[in-house]
This record gives sequence, structure tokens and C-alpha cells, in this order.
Amino acid sequence: MKVTLEAVARAIDGTVVGDGSVEITGVAGIREAREGDLTFLANPRYEPYLELTQASAVIVSENHRNIGKPLIQNPNPYLAFLKAVRFFAGDAERPCSGIHPTAVIAPDAVVAEDASIGPHAVIEPGAKIGSRSIVQAGCYVGARARLGDEVLLYPNVTIREACVLGDRVIVHSGTVVGSDGFGFVRDGDVYRKLPQVGIVEIGDDVEIGANVTIDRATTGTTRIGAGSKIDNLVQIAHNVQIGKSCIIVAQVGISGSTVLGDHVVLAGQVGVVGHIEIGDGASVGAQSGVSKSVKPGERMFGYPAMPLRQAKRIEASIRNLPELIQTVRRLKRRLDELEGSKEPR
Amino acid sequence: MKVTLEAVARAIDGTVVGDGSVEITGVAGIREAREGDLTFLANPRYEPYLELTQASAVIVSENHRNIGKPLIQNPNPYLAFLKAVRFFAGDAERPCSGIHPTAVIAPDAVVAEDASIGPHAVIEPGAKIGSRSIVQAGCYVGARARLGDEVLLYPNVTIREACVLGDRVIVHSGTVVGSDGFGFVRDGDVYRKLPQVGIVEIGDDVEIGANVTIDRATTGTTRIGAGSKIDNLVQIAHNVQIGKSCIIVAQVGISGSTVLGDHVVLAGQVGVVGHIEIGDGASVGAQSGVSKSVKPGERMFGYPAMPLRQAKRIEASIRNLPELIQTVRRLKRRLDELEGSKEPR
Amino acid sequence: MKVTLEAVARAIDGTVVGDGSVEITGVAGIREAREGDLTFLANPRYEPYLELTQASAVIVSENHRNIGKPLIQNPNPYLAFLKAVRFFAGDAERPCSGIHPTAVIAPDAVVAEDASIGPHAVIEPGAKIGSRSIVQAGCYVGARARLGDEVLLYPNVTIREACVLGDRVIVHSGTVVGSDGFGFVRDGDVYRKLPQVGIVEIGDDVEIGANVTIDRATTGTTRIGAGSKIDNLVQIAHNVQIGKSCIIVAQVGISGSTVLGDHVVLAGQVGVVGHIEIGDGASVGAQSGVSKSVKPGERMFGYPAMPLRQAKRIEASIRNLPELIQTVRRLKRRLDELEGSKEPR
Repeated sequence: MKVTLEAVARAIDGTVVGDGSVEITGVAGIREAREGDLTFLANPRYEPYLELTQASAVIVSENHRNIGKPLIQNPNPYLAFLKAVRFFAGDAERPCSGIHPTAVIAPDAVVAEDASIGPHAVIEPGAKIGSRSIVQAGCYVGARARLGDEVLLYPNVTIREACVLGDRVIVHSGTVVGSDGFGFVRDGDVYRKLPQVGIVEIGDDVEIGANVTIDRATTGTTRIGAGSKIDNLVQIAHNVQIGKSCIIVAQVGISGSTVLGDHVVLAGQVGVVGHIEIGDGASVGAQSGVSKSVKPGERMFGYPAMPLRQAKRIEASIRNLPELIQTVRRLKRRLDELEGSKEPR
Repeated sequence: MKVTLEAVARAIDGTVVGDGSVEITGVAGIREAREGDLTFLANPRYEPYLELTQASAVIVSENHRNIGKPLIQNPNPYLAFLKAVRFFAGDAERPCSGIHPTAVIAPDAVVAEDASIGPHAVIEPGAKIGSRSIVQAGCYVGARARLGDEVLLYPNVTIREACVLGDRVIVHSGTVVGSDGFGFVRDGDVYRKLPQVGIVEIGDDVEIGANVTIDRATTGTTRIGAGSKIDNLVQIAHNVQIGKSCIIVAQVGISGSTVLGDHVVLAGQVGVVGHIEIGDGASVGAQSGVSKSVKPGERMFGYPAMPLRQAKRIEASIRNLPELIQTVRRLKRRLDELEGSKEPR
Repeated sequence: MKVTLEAVARAIDGTVVGDGSVEITGVAGIREAREGDLTFLANPRYEPYLELTQASAVIVSENHRNIGKPLIQNPNPYLAFLKAVRFFAGDAERPCSGIHPTAVIAPDAVVAEDASIGPHAVIEPGAKIGSRSIVQAGCYVGARARLGDEVLLYPNVTIREACVLGDRVIVHSGTVVGSDGFGFVRDGDVYRKLPQVGIVEIGDDVEIGANVTIDRATTGTTRIGAGSKIDNLVQIAHNVQIGKSCIIVAQVGISGSTVLGDHVVLAGQVGVVGHIEIGDGASVGAQSGVSKSVKPGERMFGYPAMPLRQAKRIEASIRNLPELIQTVRRLKRRLDELEGSKEPR
């Protein structure tokens, strides 16, 4: 799809400032935007990106100064941007509606009248599905599990018994919520299973990617705080506590009983040991291995993870290591010579 | 749930020694236990943990000495502990019972009379499901696959054709047993698929986490030994052989044809190359990359993995590397001066 | 299965040169073959492996010189090898045939007459399934998705709406194609979802392992080039572009918008950051972290990844680091002494 900025502005009730003939091909956040994208500025904190963004045009509030780039002015840039997204997306269909005749719903499950249950979905006894929620094809919702309002489960999701999802939670295909924690007691030469009798509780507005695994607590609750976003193939062990608005990127693994504060960011493939705390606003670079608690706001990197500055300094040192070895060899030779020159004394 | 130690003792046929009014909130192994937990000591090897455990109380055998912590005495501490687990868990429901009318079972599949097959499960021709086994909703059991007695497949598990599961095997949701090995033959510029005609064989008492992948052998058998426990999102490639009572933590990857002995422990996110051997009782630390065979009992760590002591020594050296570079610079300056002071001679 | 080379030769229309009584137990590529295996040589580029292979016998073209190992001569060694594979595999059954009565197929979906749809599969409105394609039990094919001819989806695969699979694509169980990209816009303290309105397009002859996740593009297309092979548990983020005949080994993660050329090889557990390019024919060693673009043909290794030679040199230096520290200490002592001996002057 390729349209003029002018056409987009009409569709989203905005006013063009600058060249309305610029071609727009898509939409993106201000940092991710590329040429052809329309982006937006709603939060003053992101103003510095106005100069840096590669977007072809920006939606700004009406009283915003000109920045030498085509703009669309609108009193609420974020809402205008969402309209633009929908404009580019076209009408997204609702994937199912009503209860499909092949769904198997226990007589005492409580499914809101306006919820949708897809083909071959299974809703076990005592489960509760909130208003306007959508459970797509092949999903399993275990006994006594509770889904809030406007929850969206994509096809083939498994929610095990007694787990709780808040409102507007989105779960992508293949994800398993509430599998048993990895808990065994060694008894001589064999391991005995420790029954996992806790649950998983997921806050409002959480989104969970595809093929994620979130284990139920041994006892008590594994908890994902409101607004946190979890990417694909992430592993969250039993009794982990994740705060609000965290970002957990693909293939991260978090071991048992570890606690994350709010606004923590873990980049891709990070591993975190069990029983530690990662403070509010801390962030950890990709593939790092976190083996100790991390202070609030700290930026960590490396294997094992250390403060980013120290990690970068060490990384630079390592790159120079072969040269350092040469230097030491030369020093040794010079010292040998110096000592030799003294020997005759 | 919060009860007095006295109440737990009554429920599990034990005798309190010490303060029976202590509040107990859960159960855990002696090393993992936290305040409020009840734990147990059955194996004398774990006696040293008696002093260290954070548990609020311990189940011990009747003739055990006092350790200044409330105890419950019982002739069989492990069995008493399992009773305590059930006491805290309440009655766990059996998730399904009998054969659900929506299950699709091939006429010549053999399903034990007392087995349970959940809604929308599929049992292909020639498959065999043992006594008291439970195949939950949406599972797929391929042609000629054989499940032993008391096997438990959680919802949405896939067992491909001809694979074999022993007795009491537990498989969590989303796991795939018997997918094709990653085998291709390069033919000029393209890769030709090498048909994968072997199977997977899983021993008695194995537990496999959620969204695990275990590939069938190219020819022959990919094997998981009795009593081994595999966590979520683990990848086990074609023709891998895993011994008895191994612990494979989440997101580990084991490449083709590698052989693990008995009682091997691989911590989270470890990677192991193909065609090597890891000896009995060896253990590998989290995120390590194992590129060579490992001797029995050896403890390995790092990327690439090396013996733990060496790895720790190198890790410490690396942390001091920026300082070492300063030291060498100072030595060089001193040497320059020394040589300079000699030049006039 | 254990047969004589003579018997295999008869089954695949070849002529034995050398000892026809050798026992053959399986088949494998020339580099992977072990004792007991039959392998083949079709491409002259692999001739050096003739001396090195551990195979017990080799299929070669008719005019090939003797190499002191039993041979089977056949004018087309690769075809003869595939016959041998089938000989060892026995008759592989077709897993389903026709449309199973429990499949749910939208009235306006287009399913080729000779395609097979398994039990409990769901084909949504407007989807298209090509000739001789097989969609096994529990698979989901979303609205307007298009599968080419001879596509094979193993049980419990999810193909989301509007995604496109070429001819002869194979997808293993639990894999999700077209889940939403991980795209959010920060709005003060919360993250707003950026609708993901693009698709995934998969070229001809691609094979995708089990429990893989391939995200749809934010806008536009996430693309996997023809002939590429993807192992289990791989994560491919939104807008990634993968070229032709690439090999992506298990548990690799590729971040958003990164571009791979043709014939790229990423070994197990490699992580690649977003928005970079990896040139044609480049390869990256296991567990490496690629943070910058890689030139065509370059071999990379390490965390962070660097050219293999440099990485190996640094790795060796690191192993000697504790020794280097000792050397520097000794130099310092000798220098102290030298300076001391001068002090009296």
C-alpha cells in the first residue's frame, strides 16, 4: 500500500504541514521507523528522536513547531496514529464469533454471552471466560481457570487448571501457561516429583508471544505484572514474580523464584539464575547470564553479567589481549638484556 | 494455606518434637526450602543441610537427634513428606476419565480399558495406550506409537509415529516427541532431505516439560534413560542418547548423536555439540558451550566449557584484565627509564 | 536392520565392487556416516571425504576409481542413495488421506481434491490448500492463508491468517507461522501494541522444525527463501529476510528486520541483533552473538562474534591469561630488584 501523506491525513482527521505529496507506505514507532513510514510524537520525552527518526512524516500535536519534515497535526497524536495503523491494516476480521459447535465446554463452565469460542476448543469444568474474550481454535482452558474480559487466545494455546488471566491479555499460539514447575527431590539415586500445586496469575494488558512456557508455582503463585510484554519462546520458571511493564525479549530464561521489579528489560536469550532480584528499571543486554541480584536502574551485560561500563571495558581489553601478550614478551626480552648487561659487574 | 506444625503432624501421622505452634505455609526440598516451609530428611547424605536449611520445620526419622528446630518424627520421612504435599495441595482432580466422544481413535489402536482419552485427542492406527494412562485434550499419538502404563500426556502434546514411552512417563503441553532429525545432504547448491526413519524411546519415570522437542533418530533410536527429568523448551537432536536420572534444565540444546551417561546435570541454556560423550555424574553450568567430551564426574563451565576451577580462575583473571594492562604500561615506563639511565654509559 | 552390501546393491540396481558380504545397518551423508553406514558421492566437491568417511561402503558413479573400500556403482549415486534410504525405511505410510469428517473447513476455503486434511484440523475462510498437500491432525490454517502443492504440515501446526507457503514446504509439529511481531510503542509508563499487519512468506522446498516461531511483519513480509532449512525452537522475528538454502540450527534467534543472504549457516543457539545484514555464504559458530553486519563468506565466532581466526586467537590468549599474570608479576619483581641494585648509586 502506497498513499500520499495528504490521503492519510484525511483518513485520520489531521492537517498536513509541509509536503502532502510525500508517499507513505506504513507506520512505525519513532525509533524503529524507516523511510516511507509515518510515525508520531505523543510523549515529550521522545522529542529528541524527532531529529533522528528516519520516518518520512510525523504526527504531532497541533501546536508543535515545524521541524523541516512533513507533519500531520492532530490534538491527540497517539489516537491519530492508531487510526493510521488501522488505515494501513484494513479491516481486521474477528477470527471467530459465538461458540463453535465442535467446541467442548463443560456444563458448569461460565462463558460470557458475548465471548467467542473457536472450533475444537476445550473449556473444562469451573472455568470462566469473560466478556468479549476470544478463545480460538484448538485452545485448552483447564478446570477453574479464569480469563478476564477481552482476552484473546490465538489457536492452540494451553491454559492449565486454576490459572488466572486479567483483562485484555493476549496469548499467542503454542504457548503453555501453568505447566508444572521443574521440582524434584533427590532420594538416593532417583528423583521424586514434588507436586506443583500453585498457579500462574497474569495481570491486565499483558501480551505473551508464541510457544512461551510459564510454569505454575510449586505452592503459591507465579506472577506476571500488568502491562508486561513477553516475546516468543521465553521460559518463566515456577514462582517467578515479574513486575509491571517489563519487556522480556525472545528466548529469555528466568529460573525459579526470581523477582523482577517494574520496567525491567531483558534482551534476547538472556539467562537469569533463580532466587535473585532484578530492580525496577534495570536492563540486561542480549545473551547475558545474570547470576547475582541487580540494582534498580542498573544496565548489565556479559557472561557473567556485570555493569555495562565494566563489561565494555573488559571486552575492549580482551580484544587487545594478543597484543598485550606481545608487549609482555618484548618487556621480558628487554629485561633479560638489561640483567645480562649487568652480569659482568 | 497456613496451619500449625501440630496440625500437619496429625495429618501425616507424625510426632512433633519442639514447638508445635510454628506456622507452616508450604513444602519444599531441604535445599530450596524457605521460611514457612516444611521439609524432610530421608537420605543421610543430606544431613549437612539440616543446619543450613531455611525451612521452619523438618520431617526426620524417629530416632533422629534434636537440632534446635521443630521436627516431625515419622519412621518414613519421605512418605510422610509426600503426605504433607498432598495435605497442602488438596485433592487434585483427575483431568479426564474414559474416552471422550470427540476423540478420534483408529479401530485397530489398542487403548487399555482403564485409560482416559480427552476431547479432540487423536490416536492413530496401531498405537497402544497402557493401563491407567491419561491422554488429555488435543493430544496426537501417531501410528504404532506405544505408551506404557500410567503415562500422563497434558493437553496438546504430539507423539509421532512408532515412538515408545515407558511406564509413568509425564509429558507437558506443547511438547513434540519424534519430529524429524535435522538431516540433509548437500547436493551442489541445494540440500536434499535425508529421510528420518528411526524412533524415540523414553524410559520409565521420565518427565518432560512443556514445548520440548525430541527428534527421532535418522536410523535407530534417540533414547532418554529411565528417571531422567527434562525441563521446558529443551532441544534434543536425532540419535542423542541420554542416560538414567539426568537433569536437563530449560532451553538446553543437545546436538546429534551425543551421548550422556547417568546422573548428568546440564544447567539452563547449555549447548552441547554433536558426536561427543558426557560421562556419568558430570555437570555443566548455565549457558556453557560444551565442545569436547567430558569425563565422568567432571564439573564444567564457560564458553567454551572447561573444568570449573580453571573457568573460575580465568574469569577472575579477566575481571582484572584492565588493571593488568595498567600494570604492564607502568612496567614499560619503568623499563624505558632504566634503559635511558644506562644510555649515557 | 542388518543386511549385506550385496543385498542392498540388488535393491538399488547397483553393482558391488569389492567385498559384498560387508554388513550394512543404515545410511548417512558422507561426513556424518559411521561404521555400518552406506553413504554416497555425487558431487565432485566432496571427493576429499572419500578418504575420511567412516562409512562401511560408498555409492559412486560407474566410472569411479577404486578407493580400497567396498563400493556400489550406479550411474546416478544420489538417486541410488535415496532408494537405499527407502530400502532401510520400509514403506512410510501416508499419515492421512482425504478429508477427515471432524475437520472444520470454511465453505469458501479452497482445498485441492487430492489434498488430505486430518482429524480436528481447522481451515478458515478464504484459505487455499494445494494439490497433494497434507494437513495433519489438529493443524490450524488461518483465513486467506495459502499453501502450495505437496506441502506437509505435521500435527498441531499453526499457520496464521494470510501467510503464504510455497510448494513442498514441510512444517513440523508445534510450529507457529505468522504470530504477531513483538512491536510496542512506549507511551509514558505503558507500552501500546503496534498492530502487526504484515505476513510471512515461505519459499519452495523450505523445511521448518518443531516448535519454531516465525513472526509476521509489522507491515510487509517476513520472508524465508527457497530451500532454506530451519531446525527446532528457532525464533525468527518480524520483517526478517532469509535468503535461499540457508541452514538455521536449533534455538537460534534472529531479531527484527535482519537480512540473511543465500547459503548462510547459523549454528545452534546463535543470537543475531536486529537491523543488520549477514552476507551470502557467511557462517556463524554455535552460541555466538552477532551484533554487527557480517561480510559475505566470513566465518564468525564468539560473544560478541568476530572473525573466526581472531576469535580463536583471543580464546587461546584467554586460556593463557592466568599464566600471563604470573609472568607480569615476575617481571615486576625482577624490575624491582634491578631498580634496587641501582639505588646505591
